[in-house]
Amino acid sequence: MERVAFTFRVRPECVDEYRHRHAAVWPQMISALRAAGWHNYSLFLAEDGLVVGYLETEDFEAAQALMADSDVNRRWQQYMAGLLAALDGATADAALRRLPLVFHID
Amino acid sequence: MERVAFTFRVRPECVDEYRHRHAAVWPQMISALRAAGWHNYSLFLAEDGLVVGYLETEDFEAAQALMADSDVNRRWQQYMAGLLAALDGATADAALRRLPLVFHID
Repeated sequence: MERVAFTFRVRPECVDEYRHRHAAVWPQMISALRAAGWHNYSLFLAEDGLVVGYLETEDFEAAQALMADSDVNRRWQQYMAGLLAALDGATADAALRRLPLVFHID
Repeated sequence: MERVAFTFRVRPECVDEYRHRHAAVWPQMISALRAAGWHNYSLFLAEDGLVVGYLETEDFEAAQALMADSDVNRRWQQYMAGLLAALDGATADAALRRLPLVFHID
């Protein structure tokens, strides 16, 4: 099982809207994440726009590929795109930066 | 149960040393974390020095206070202090920035 952390950035003026939209994530998006093996998945958001994601999955590369193939994820990423900082044309899920694990205890 | 994410920064030139020391965390430090209720605790480290911590605990304020009272934690924080960026005199565990949770699925 892989433990994954990643970061990306929301534009500081869009932090409230990002939080608001994530209080009502589409049920189909949640189903797609579950079907793609995203377990114990949390998003955290700082006031300056830094987003930290954490999840547990069997194989993160496969879990990302399954989401990249999902229609509902494409629609969700389009819905989020305007809120995100400095994507240079990439979608949010392509722009995320993964951080290597250096320590773990259960 | 609280899901907690926090960040702090290692000096970029100390990233390898931070990773090296976290491959061999003192057994007494691990025991102290467990006794203080730090569960499923991971640290992630980016090449530029950004550290992301994730844990699950009943009450983070209490879990932090128990560590702050621990002798082994004081010694560990002293051992880490020289590796950390811009603490302005604070210890690492006092300098961490917690990020609010905005989304979760199991």
